[in-house]
Amino acid sequence: MIKRTISAILFSAFAFFSGFAQSDDSLMIKKIADEILLNGKASENLYTLCKSVGTRLSGSAGMYKAEAWGLKVLLEAGAEKAYLQQCMVPHWVRGKKEYAGYQTKKRSSDPEFDVLAIGNSVGTGEKGVLAQVIEVKNFAELNQRKEEVKGKIVFYNYPFNKTLLRGAYGDAVRYRSNGASMAAKYGALAVIVRSVTAAYDDNPHTGALRYNDSFPKIPALAISTKGAEKLSGFIKGIYKEENLFIRSNCEMLPDTIGHNVIGEIKGTEFPDEIITIGGHLDSWDQGEGASDDGTGLVQSIEILRTFKAIGYKPKRTIRIVLFANEENGLRGGTKYAEEAKLKNEKHIMAMESDGGAEYPRGFGCGMTKEQFAKVQGWTKFFEPFDANRFTFSEGGGGGADIGPLQTTFKTAQFGLSTTGQRYFDVHHSAIDVFEKVNTQELNLCAVVMASMVYLVDKYGL
Amino acid sequence: MIKRTISAILFSAFAFFSGFAQSDDSLMIKKIADEILLNGKASENLYTLCKSVGTRLSGSAGMYKAEAWGLKVLLEAGAEKAYLQQCMVPHWVRGKKEYAGYQTKKRSSDPEFDVLAIGNSVGTGEKGVLAQVIEVKNFAELNQRKEEVKGKIVFYNYPFNKTLLRGAYGDAVRYRSNGASMAAKYGALAVIVRSVTAAYDDNPHTGALRYNDSFPKIPALAISTKGAEKLSGFIKGIYKEENLFIRSNCEMLPDTIGHNVIGEIKGTEFPDEIITIGGHLDSWDQGEGASDDGTGLVQSIEILRTFKAIGYKPKRTIRIVLFANEENGLRGGTKYAEEAKLKNEKHIMAMESDGGAEYPRGFGCGMTKEQFAKVQGWTKFFEPFDANRFTFSEGGGGGADIGPLQTTFKTAQFGLSTTGQRYFDVHHSAIDVFEKVNTQELNLCAVVMASMVYLVDKYGL
Repeated sequence: MIKRTISAILFSAFAFFSGFAQSDDSLMIKKIADEILLNGKASENLYTLCKSVGTRLSGSAGMYKAEAWGLKVLLEAGAEKAYLQQCMVPHWVRGKKEYAGYQTKKRSSDPEFDVLAIGNSVGTGEKGVLAQVIEVKNFAELNQRKEEVKGKIVFYNYPFNKTLLRGAYGDAVRYRSNGASMAAKYGALAVIVRSVTAAYDDNPHTGALRYNDSFPKIPALAISTKGAEKLSGFIKGIYKEENLFIRSNCEMLPDTIGHNVIGEIKGTEFPDEIITIGGHLDSWDQGEGASDDGTGLVQSIEILRTFKAIGYKPKRTIRIVLFANEENGLRGGTKYAEEAKLKNEKHIMAMESDGGAEYPRGFGCGMTKEQFAKVQGWTKFFEPFDANRFTFSEGGGGGADIGPLQTTFKTAQFGLSTTGQRYFDVHHSAIDVFEKVNTQELNLCAVVMASMVYLVDKYGL
Repeated sequence: MIKRTISAILFSAFAFFSGFAQSDDSLMIKKIADEILLNGKASENLYTLCKSVGTRLSGSAGMYKAEAWGLKVLLEAGAEKAYLQQCMVPHWVRGKKEYAGYQTKKRSSDPEFDVLAIGNSVGTGEKGVLAQVIEVKNFAELNQRKEEVKGKIVFYNYPFNKTLLRGAYGDAVRYRSNGASMAAKYGALAVIVRSVTAAYDDNPHTGALRYNDSFPKIPALAISTKGAEKLSGFIKGIYKEENLFIRSNCEMLPDTIGHNVIGEIKGTEFPDEIITIGGHLDSWDQGEGASDDGTGLVQSIEILRTFKAIGYKPKRTIRIVLFANEENGLRGGTKYAEEAKLKNEKHIMAMESDGGAEYPRGFGCGMTKEQFAKVQGWTKFFEPFDANRFTFSEGGGGGADIGPLQTTFKTAQFGLSTTGQRYFDVHHSAIDVFEKVNTQELNLCAVVMASMVYLVDKYGL
């Protein structure tokens, strides 16, 4: 491209700010934006988290390193105090690398598959499971063919529906979350689940499952999308009658001690009114937990840093919370709301970012109609950033970690919403790394988050 | 992230299509979307272009390979005919790898810098240029300090203004385009220009310059953004009094033969009314020309393939044009409009994609007010894809290659507009490669382009 088209010119934030009545708020929001876009530290913080801490599953050594990182960056960003809030967290360990493959030795080489144990699942142990594979497209087919399931490995080959644009994850994740117990109900020995991702590659994507206590706990593996196609081909073809061998050594250990990491600036006018902003500190044990949810952490911390840098002193108390154990227990979010209730705190707003750092489009708003009307009145401030898409759900949630605040206090919820087409390519996999995050998009997310926090802090909700 | 937030659910295209009155048009657009999102070939075509053809600067061997690739994929996609339209193109060659560094030998090692000759520029030749560097922030500073420039290398260290969001390229590219002649006017021997990119890394970004014939043609180099900071530091520090040595072997050879590559489906009702859709076939000689403009090519071709696949027979003639020589001459776009005029063709609409394949947001619309009102009436069809942002410029352009059609026929212009924050990170550099393009976003762009073409084809403009 040699020159910008008309849309580029019309669509520039600069033009907006020039034409716009220069209210105090629009000037303050421009200050926030300039600070973050020109001097932002989110990318630098994400780099140290990804490269010096790395993965940080609950109970792992990485979790403790991440907590120390969190305290340090919160203080550096300008928190008046930073502290740990203890909570017990589950301690699931993957153990030795998983295996799935045919071992018939009838041919020069039998196929093997890229797999990862699904989080929270039991392992097969060293002895493994050797059984025929029954492939089903979905639960309906499983139910239809329930008589065939006993003694077999159920393979859920449900594709990520790319036509849903924003609903595909919720649609497909059922097989990872519930597939093991659904199959165990009919006597399956184990399950293999197609990775919940739009990407077509060799990376298996892990994530949590939940066992239904009414049925036996059976091992569960995620298989890469290419692996799923390969396995599907083999079991329809020359390996139709053969047994697949799978092995996983994961196990759930006793709960251990973890922490929410909290950084705070006390409000100047209404110190008892609390605004909570956060992401989750834990990550799966693949890649670097960059987009899930390193980005949510560094965006939240950036709000604190920016307010300090531009000299904005919040009227209300701002708390940045790096929540423990979102991925496989939600113990951090639960604990945070419990403690708040015990202390009789007043939580007026909570914001969460846990969908990566793609180009921001606005917020999912879980609040009252009256509160939403107020938020909609601020739409103009988000237009220059093209982040004016506010979706409303009365009393709905804005994210997993701030959900318990909603349940406990009816705290107004803001969930950052982005374009969201790339997140699930990397999510819970080996390629969830720093290099996949674009600095400008990361910063733009922080700009719109900080702007909304500024407005709620100034005007209440 | 363990579950989707409310915004995800409310924001799903599926919900839209379910709730929406199922008009023929919304059903057809859903068909288009499903075909592209589930069976799209754009990514596969981009892969072969990037990996088998590679770079394809005008006059290079790659250009001819790309033309052959274009004819093949257009026919595979279902063009009734595919043909070449000859035009003369400039033939600039880079020659041996460029060099910039201090060679004082006063220390154990002198610094060197990542540079690339700027396209169309003259080279220094083997003898190089050895001169002091004068750093200026912008043209204003150059003019102020014009007395100091003579016999020196001018270093434009103008940063990409990240706060402009969509105007930063146009703002900064002046130094690459015009900087050489502006400095030559005051007697500079050569210029070094900070790369026009938001990225902070070691990749220099090339691109075209235009010499002003009133002044001597002097060599011009692009320096990476990290390199620019490093050079700036050295010339303020220990290399203040030293001469920098630069060398480039690029040169402009005589014009040579190139071609627009055109694929066509004849209209069933109004075959004389032509809809032109395209991107440019040439690329700079760095990376693979994936986002600039491989994506524009494969998106355009995908429209043809999709219409065939779903059995839609256009009323009007659809022409996919892979334009020659956008980057350093615009000869292809110019030739296409000239030929159209000679043949007295009727061009009712032209669409261009030349800004990469990020998440689509809509179109820049260069047309009459009446035409734009009609386009706005179709907004609802673009809402499910979040691509309903139509910006208007009466008689304005939609892109470089279709600009001459506008000038010649007042043809209505559509320039694809995307979120556009990542494009300039890779643009004209070694990292403009296939791997930087997200398949789902690429396909979504094709969906919104095909949908608009469908509507204009059906209803006219």
